[in-house]
Amino acid sequence: MRPSKRAADEMRAVTLERNVSKHAEGSCLVKFGDTHVLCTASLEERIPPWLRGQNRGWVTAEYGMLPRATGDRMRREASAGKQSGRTLEIQRLIGRSLRAVVDLQALGERQISVDCDVLQADGGTRTAAITGAWVALSDCITWMKTRDMLTRPVLKDHIAAVSCGIYNGTPVLDLDYDEDSTAETDANFVLTGSGGIVEIQGTAEGAPFSEEEFAQLLSLAKGGISRLVELQKMAIL
Amino acid sequence: MRPSKRAADEMRAVTLERNVSKHAEGSCLVKFGDTHVLCTASLEERIPPWLRGQNRGWVTAEYGMLPRATGDRMRREASAGKQSGRTLEIQRLIGRSLRAVVDLQALGERQISVDCDVLQADGGTRTAAITGAWVALSDCITWMKTRDMLTRPVLKDHIAAVSCGIYNGTPVLDLDYDEDSTAETDANFVLTGSGGIVEIQGTAEGAPFSEEEFAQLLSLAKGGISRLVELQKMAIL
Amino acid sequence: MRPSKRAADEMRAVTLERNVSKHAEGSCLVKFGDTHVLCTASLEERIPPWLRGQNRGWVTAEYGMLPRATGDRMRREASAGKQSGRTLEIQRLIGRSLRAVVDLQALGERQISVDCDVLQADGGTRTAAITGAWVALSDCITWMKTRDMLTRPVLKDHIAAVSCGIYNGTPVLDLDYDEDSTAETDANFVLTGSGGIVEIQGTAEGAPFSEEEFAQLLSLAKGGISRLVELQKMAIL
Amino acid sequence: MRPSKRAADEMRAVTLERNVSKHAEGSCLVKFGDTHVLCTASLEERIPPWLRGQNRGWVTAEYGMLPRATGDRMRREASAGKQSGRTLEIQRLIGRSLRAVVDLQALGERQISVDCDVLQADGGTRTAAITGAWVALSDCITWMKTRDMLTRPVLKDHIAAVSCGIYNGTPVLDLDYDEDSTAETDANFVLTGSGGIVEIQGTAEGAPFSEEEFAQLLSLAKGGISRLVELQKMAIL
Amino acid sequence: MRPSKRAADEMRAVTLERNVSKHAEGSCLVKFGDTHVLCTASLEERIPPWLRGQNRGWVTAEYGMLPRATGDRMRREASAGKQSGRTLEIQRLIGRSLRAVVDLQALGERQISVDCDVLQADGGTRTAAITGAWVALSDCITWMKTRDMLTRPVLKDHIAAVSCGIYNGTPVLDLDYDEDSTAETDANFVLTGSGGIVEIQGTAEGAPFSEEEFAQLLSLAKGGISRLVELQKMAIL
Amino acid sequence: MRPSKRAADEMRAVTLERNVSKHAEGSCLVKFGDTHVLCTASLEERIPPWLRGQNRGWVTAEYGMLPRATGDRMRREASAGKQSGRTLEIQRLIGRSLRAVVDLQALGERQISVDCDVLQADGGTRTAAITGAWVALSDCITWMKTRDMLTRPVLKDHIAAVSCGIYNGTPVLDLDYDEDSTAETDANFVLTGSGGIVEIQGTAEGAPFSEEEFAQLLSLAKGGISRLVELQKMAIL
Repeated sequence: MRPSKRAADEMRAVTLERNVSKHAEGSCLVKFGDTHVLCTASLEERIPPWLRGQNRGWVTAEYGMLPRATGDRMRREASAGKQSGRTLEIQRLIGRSLRAVVDLQALGERQISVDCDVLQADGGTRTAAITGAWVALSDCITWMKTRDMLTRPVLKDHIAAVSCGIYNGTPVLDLDYDEDSTAETDANFVLTGSGGIVEIQGTAEGAPFSEEEFAQLLSLAKGGISRLVELQKMAIL
Repeated sequence: MRPSKRAADEMRAVTLERNVSKHAEGSCLVKFGDTHVLCTASLEERIPPWLRGQNRGWVTAEYGMLPRATGDRMRREASAGKQSGRTLEIQRLIGRSLRAVVDLQALGERQISVDCDVLQADGGTRTAAITGAWVALSDCITWMKTRDMLTRPVLKDHIAAVSCGIYNGTPVLDLDYDEDSTAETDANFVLTGSGGIVEIQGTAEGAPFSEEEFAQLLSLAKGGISRLVELQKMAIL
Repeated sequence: MRPSKRAADEMRAVTLERNVSKHAEGSCLVKFGDTHVLCTASLEERIPPWLRGQNRGWVTAEYGMLPRATGDRMRREASAGKQSGRTLEIQRLIGRSLRAVVDLQALGERQISVDCDVLQADGGTRTAAITGAWVALSDCITWMKTRDMLTRPVLKDHIAAVSCGIYNGTPVLDLDYDEDSTAETDANFVLTGSGGIVEIQGTAEGAPFSEEEFAQLLSLAKGGISRLVELQKMAIL
Repeated sequence: MRPSKRAADEMRAVTLERNVSKHAEGSCLVKFGDTHVLCTASLEERIPPWLRGQNRGWVTAEYGMLPRATGDRMRREASAGKQSGRTLEIQRLIGRSLRAVVDLQALGERQISVDCDVLQADGGTRTAAITGAWVALSDCITWMKTRDMLTRPVLKDHIAAVSCGIYNGTPVLDLDYDEDSTAETDANFVLTGSGGIVEIQGTAEGAPFSEEEFAQLLSLAKGGISRLVELQKMAIL
Repeated sequence: MRPSKRAADEMRAVTLERNVSKHAEGSCLVKFGDTHVLCTASLEERIPPWLRGQNRGWVTAEYGMLPRATGDRMRREASAGKQSGRTLEIQRLIGRSLRAVVDLQALGERQISVDCDVLQADGGTRTAAITGAWVALSDCITWMKTRDMLTRPVLKDHIAAVSCGIYNGTPVLDLDYDEDSTAETDANFVLTGSGGIVEIQGTAEGAPFSEEEFAQLLSLAKGGISRLVELQKMAIL
Repeated sequence: MRPSKRAADEMRAVTLERNVSKHAEGSCLVKFGDTHVLCTASLEERIPPWLRGQNRGWVTAEYGMLPRATGDRMRREASAGKQSGRTLEIQRLIGRSLRAVVDLQALGERQISVDCDVLQADGGTRTAAITGAWVALSDCITWMKTRDMLTRPVLKDHIAAVSCGIYNGTPVLDLDYDEDSTAETDANFVLTGSGGIVEIQGTAEGAPFSEEEFAQLLSLAKGGISRLVELQKMAIL
């Protein structure tokens, strides 16, 4: 039995609320249960120096957590003077995931910076962030289209993510914090709308896991992500 | 005529929403029009080293802005590796303001850390932060009372803040960003519920201002803050 | 009775010694009693990137304290790897104060950097720094004039600063360290030679203060600053 | 055809040279073809503060690259003042991988720090590092056994790692730099000697990959890692 | 002919002014011509962690330069966020030089921190700093003696320093900036009052130098330092 | 008697192994007994900003130590976030030493960066680094010659270095760690192939040393360096 009473293949309540920022070209407040992430997509005319003159754009992401997003207050990274390895790892993952469905040539020499800031955390912040970031990114691209800044499609597909894990010996979908902190195995999956795999990260926290267990996690993830993609489609209608 | 059509002594719509954080002992989402600040108060058993053994507690504050809280995206301070002078100045101001109405002896050897994170900025973020931080602090102290952690009152008074400025030659209350960026003079006032002055910061952006002008700004601020204190009282009912 | 036996409206002995640096275009060693600040004004042909191409110059300031300027040795900021919030706050104040009396267009595309380094501290370092920085700045501008680098006046007025506070219930002028560390209220005033207010910073260290008390502090400050401006005039004769 | 002419399931020449450090309790110079990593295991009596008093030890890892380990010289991280996200990600992976086969209770309140420094890079540095780090760790534990510092077995299994990828449409084992920089998909696998999975990291660099492709990569990895474990066994004979 | 018209073995005018700090236990403003260094010695009860419990004290030094001590303004190290290699090198040299004449056991478990801050630079700042630091240190020790904090002598000898160089083919004593910036060879010598050598640092800026040239520089240095020690003796009378 | 049984004027076994890096334009693994330093020379088309447009090149050096190169593991500088004063001092010394024998005009507007990374330390790392760096530099210049990038000779002479010290009252050549950590005096000498002195750094660790002692150290160094230069000549044949 999961602490939340959910079925093994049941996600938390997911909402995707658009237009939550007065300033950003695209924005989305995504909630996976009690995990709340504010995603904004900012269009910038500058691109990274190493990309200049290549007729291509860039999509990048940054991730942060408010100090009291968590059960115990954590030190503010701006005050500590550096971002943790975990933060850097997550923001690299979000950026790679988004770029997997963007046609950078079609974007032109511009950068879209997606900021994912966790207002409240209850497990699965990186997967919620990727799922919400896609909506913010999509709105930013729509914003550009309505201003005739684009001549061909930029977004190639949906991208969404979910975590799965083995909790008390059972593979379950969309771990919350209670499950995540005691799961034997924890895996994050990033898939496109058409079911292609973009990222897989699986870690044995306790005992190593088997190929069969991993296949079960992937199967759960595919189901969850297909529902997330449906929600994304409804959100941007 | 103000860009927002407000009267000279008219504040923006102010709301104070409590219990916006699942984890924090006290929390408040404060809105001064389009300026939105999430305030959380975190109770910590540790105190700063220089306070140890003095039977006193401490109240401190940290301030941050999401990168796209503003019209143009700003660099994330965690990524830049340091907090700007502006950020440090503001969080010192918030901390001093809150401590002015707290009985640190009554708090006992504990620290309350108040985080004020600007989700969306439209001028007046520091004054909104102080006003909302008081609500979060008050709820944190109530949380302690209901757990019998306090033996006498800790909060001595309300504290609230507002900015005033001279805009197009006219003293006006509660500057929004459009006004703030062109005002000749900009002043922030922090007052207690009983009308005592805790902080005054006045700056001539263009021409110096006179004693008379300053008196007018202070008078506007007293009116605005008395309304903010009313809202705080209603919020914590 | 003040620890220094001064009358309530009596400043410490103030001296302004010019030409104390072999290299700087302008320099002044300012003493407010035992508070000694070395101010140098350096002319630089480069300007901040965001000002380029606007036919305007810039005046900026930096502030520092020698580690043993104070009663207890403080950690060297260069060794700590960052400037404290207090340092950043003070140098921003000095820069704003100086710019309030400079015609940046008349300066041309150049920057004057004023360094204020506290050799010995006994309270009021920021107000002494502003008062001495004006003299260094004035000499730097004279240096430029004698080299035909300027076509019209750059300095619009004097600027000087003093602190006031409520010490043992009495408003007093120009706090020294003994007073500053126990004053109930501490306020810094920056005024022009013609009496216009450029900056006001008032803080209740203990109990909040009233509008009447604040008016008394401002009145003392006006007297003190008018004497400081007299001294500046004599210094640059 | 692979640039190195290797068969799809063929690893590069792998060597594991022990006792390459005069000082370290365990050490191994591991080579996967032209990728050379120097691994040292250092026994330290101190443990991280959060582990104190729990009768458990810790195994941690750090990763670095000499500036000219790569085709173009890279900036030295010590001079840049921080470790890159990539470095932090890799050293976290090495540490987790090693801890998966260590009985931390049996280690006692001590820390083993494994340093993996890349002397020369040609792709696959993290997988070579994990494979060599196990040998250094094993020797460090043997060093402790011969000094009667341990009362029961600490190492529970072997751990080794290899990368696989889809190169020109074909799944191949043990990518070198030429392959890695153009592969469509790149995955790192960390497995135990008994075939349990400890870490999986798969990334689509270009087009997303399918479940079938991923299964092929995992199958190649299992073959490669079983050979690496054989080499580890021979090395520590 | 030297730019300053001095004879080859002639030092600049040297002054050692004591008691220049209201707060420090010992202080000296040392001038070697236009090179002015403010030296303060601060007694601290804490010692470095690695020295605890050894019944020994420590003497350490820090060095800094005001930004406009030099002909062109240099970036403030506190603002740059780190001390330069040159600064670290110099302060290590000053500390080692002072410790060479201090009986650390006799000092007891205390630290004396000597700060050497260059107010104005014209070459030879490190040698002036060492020479003045000795006077500040000596006064600090006298301060301790008069408070009965010491039971036996702490200072074993004088220490002083001077630079020599080969300028236009001629070995000369006490280089000023004009000479230093064009000298072919530059050497710093630190000697005790009894003529023992504590530090030698010689660098060929252009062509390598010979053993004979080096011997000439050392001979000049011995003469200069013996005069500096005389001045120290007169200063502390 | 020296701990290593060597005669007073006997160096450790020295080897200079070239072509140890697949990528670098020049490389050398130098061993002075158990001190092993990997030196790579990297040709870069960019030069420092302050050299641009002067038709001259630059040679610079960086120095590092693997964390467990030493008897006790040291903190990794990349993780500490800064290079120590010792590291900065050493890499400045290596760079100056190499530039003393390079014709920077003949090099053209290019930079050669020499990295010296200590794989294992047993005293004398900086002198081994200089000696090996010269070989790497020489091979880099040869690499350029064979590609017709140079029109006249760049390398003017050999450069090599050795340490000497007074150990148990006797001057000895090429200190190892056992000697270095207890020597009364420690001096590093950098000489050219033709015997010119480029750098001398002598430090009294305990009692000051005399001119005669220093002359003995220099004499030992000349002997040692002349043998090192022979080895360099044989290495590059």
